Amino acid sequence: MSGPARATQHASSKSAVLDVIRAAGTISRVGLINATGFTGATISTVVRKLIDEGLVVETGRAESTGGKRRVLLQLNHSSRYAVGVHLDHAGITYVLTNLGGSVVARISRAGAGAAEPRTVVARMAAEVKGLIDGVGVDHKRVLGLGLVSPGPLSSDTGMGLTPPSMRKWEDFPLDQELERATSLPVVLDNDATAAALGEHWSGGIGGTAISAALYMGTGIGAGLVINGITYRGSSGNAGEIGHICVDANGPECWCGARGCVEVLAGPAAVVAAARADAALAGSAGLTGRARSVSSDFAAVSRAARRGEPSALAILERSARYIAVAARTLANIMDLEVLVLTGPSFAIAGSVYLPVVRDELDRAFFSRAAHGVDVRLSRSAATASAIGGAALVLQSELVPLHEGLRLPENLADSEPAALPASGE
Amino acid sequence: MSGPARATQHASSKSAVLDVIRAAGTISRVGLINATGFTGATISTVVRKLIDEGLVVETGRAESTGGKRRVLLQLNHSSRYAVGVHLDHAGITYVLTNLGGSVVARISRAGAGAAEPRTVVARMAAEVKGLIDGVGVDHKRVLGLGLVSPGPLSSDTGMGLTPPSMRKWEDFPLDQELERATSLPVVLDNDATAAALGEHWSGGIGGTAISAALYMGTGIGAGLVINGITYRGSSGNAGEIGHICVDANGPECWCGARGCVEVLAGPAAVVAAARADAALAGSAGLTGRARSVSSDFAAVSRAARRGEPSALAILERSARYIAVAARTLANIMDLEVLVLTGPSFAIAGSVYLPVVRDELDRAFFSRAAHGVDVRLSRSAATASAIGGAALVLQSELVPLHEGLRLPENLADSEPAALPASGE
Repeated sequence: MSGPARATQHASSKSAVLDVIRAAGTISRVGLINATGFTGATISTVVRKLIDEGLVVETGRAESTGGKRRVLLQLNHSSRYAVGVHLDHAGITYVLTNLGGSVVARISRAGAGAAEPRTVVARMAAEVKGLIDGVGVDHKRVLGLGLVSPGPLSSDTGMGLTPPSMRKWEDFPLDQELERATSLPVVLDNDATAAALGEHWSGGIGGTAISAALYMGTGIGAGLVINGITYRGSSGNAGEIGHICVDANGPECWCGARGCVEVLAGPAAVVAAARADAALAGSAGLTGRARSVSSDFAAVSRAARRGEPSALAILERSARYIAVAARTLANIMDLEVLVLTGPSFAIAGSVYLPVVRDELDRAFFSRAAHGVDVRLSRSAATASAIGGAALVLQSELVPLHEGLRLPENLADSEPAALPASGE
Repeated sequence: MSGPARATQHASSKSAVLDVIRAAGTISRVGLINATGFTGATISTVVRKLIDEGLVVETGRAESTGGKRRVLLQLNHSSRYAVGVHLDHAGITYVLTNLGGSVVARISRAGAGAAEPRTVVARMAAEVKGLIDGVGVDHKRVLGLGLVSPGPLSSDTGMGLTPPSMRKWEDFPLDQELERATSLPVVLDNDATAAALGEHWSGGIGGTAISAALYMGTGIGAGLVINGITYRGSSGNAGEIGHICVDANGPECWCGARGCVEVLAGPAAVVAAARADAALAGSAGLTGRARSVSSDFAAVSRAARRGEPSALAILERSARYIAVAARTLANIMDLEVLVLTGPSFAIAGSVYLPVVRDELDRAFFSRAAHGVDVRLSRSAATASAIGGAALVLQSELVPLHEGLRLPENLADSEPAALPASGE
């Protein structure tokens, strides 16, 4: 399995039941019938299979509500694991999660840098082995690997159009090479969509709202979660908010357009502005030869935290542009929840949060109907890697049917379900 | 029933079956079982009810494929009707459609102008009666009225925040007053979302794609259709693209933000630019006192068609901003299809179409994965009113379950549906 397109083809009663159990924590067979709309016979058969496979365990009985006390089911969390890898120019983050999506191991290693993709893949395979062996998990229990990188992705070739820092990876068959090197099934996704999924699984955004994760790593993107389902668009590249225009006459961007929020306000723009200010460049240690954008961005953020007005002014200018992009996203999606996440918000989120909040309070178009709840992620640095692992678990747990879910009132196909009205 | 929020609560096996029959044209009972996943007994019961109610008729038999020839079913198109009303400052468009969504009558009347809402509602009721009586349709066969107006809407009060030209309508209980005046159930929707629905029902955008209608009347908006289902957002106000920023330092907009595409490039901006050009204002007949924005916009468009370079330059400047907004929408939604629709594109679409096409060909972010098919609507002037009627029909036909649809492979709840893989 590989690519966001192919990953959306899986769906089964088994995965639907597993996901209901995951979301509920503990649930009875009757609860499963009510939640899924499946018949009692189906639930009984599916649950027996899940117990036989070791994915689900019985765990005591619910309090009596008059009748027989019901046996409760829950996931067998340590029965399966998934690896999430967030690959970026500046760093590679690895997580190992259990079947419930909880992180059981996490490491950070050097980024892809300028190395050849083949070399990086060989190193990644060794680092994945180290991650799994480090906590003594049996490799046979690892379902697969979710590889997350800057988008956009193409389902044919992996990365079809890459940011300048990763141009070498264009047309490199990343999923196949990584499958060969790790002997694990590989799923690809872009960093921002994976971050949204990671936020959803780790509770950063709720299951029933229309939510987005505004992601800032080296680039800027957004992942969309509609009623608990990741919205991917027609090619898995939805949410490309870094390349929306906030100044039609602005500077050219590497993507071919003008005035994109990424070129005006992304970490590279922040670092360039700081380097252009001799005093700030000196005090923040930016005078030497260029290091990675993310380490320079971190240096500017530290200067702002130390109270250097010029550093703070540069970050606030970036925040104002990003707030405008956030408002555009909120206006188009009619958002309820927006989480700021990703490595750059992990560093400088406290500067961005009030500016984005203020912009949406003041100018979100549908503010007369409702506000947008803007939050800073509590796992901003690892959300994408967690999302990568969640993507693997989802292919086992969730029917990834083009973002669509079983409406409860259609699941009951008996004529008794016909409404009385209008007949 | 009223308001986009409440309109999404309806769902039943009956409406699901009706919508499958509508989409198919003609279909057998076996075809319905396959398409809906319902059991044979359910389909048999539901179809009998639909025939008893006169909504569906039997219409001959399918060609034999070996076994017994199957009876075909189709909608009884003239069994039910719906009224769609597009209310705007400058004009009111009324359509009457049959159960299949085909327009059987259409009239245009004077707009809301500066008149009191109560006066306008009384006139609308008379005009709706005229529309229905004009084609001799029995009022008892009319299911309801879909009222479409500039957004955003609030499910509590109707229009919660209105454009300046319709400020009097803020907090006016439009749905209740119109229900009282017409004795018809009323559903509200915003003009852009309704236009997208109208395009979907009239075949302007396909059922399986991720599509958007870019709407330009007096204002600018977008309606989103994901796999045939209208995406409404958390409060029915998704797609507010007129108020996305294309120039963070641009002029103030009535919505409270700066540099919105509507204030820079909407019909009012086009008209203001034309009036500021003395020669053009003279030749286009704009020198008198201000008429409605839409009649002035039409005058500028006529001047451009006559080949006046200054008129063409003003429209092309507007088109470039709108193309940038279209690209933002395409990047966020990962769109496959974009239709230009609404009264202003009905007049000047030929100027805008090539500019929007060029922008998306050149700078759509995921262009390496796929292009965006940009089209000019063939029913741009009436799409919103058609969408209003479709909204009424949908509440009878389509399970409007928060934009989600029954995944076919979950509808079959028998254990036999479990996949062989992964077990």
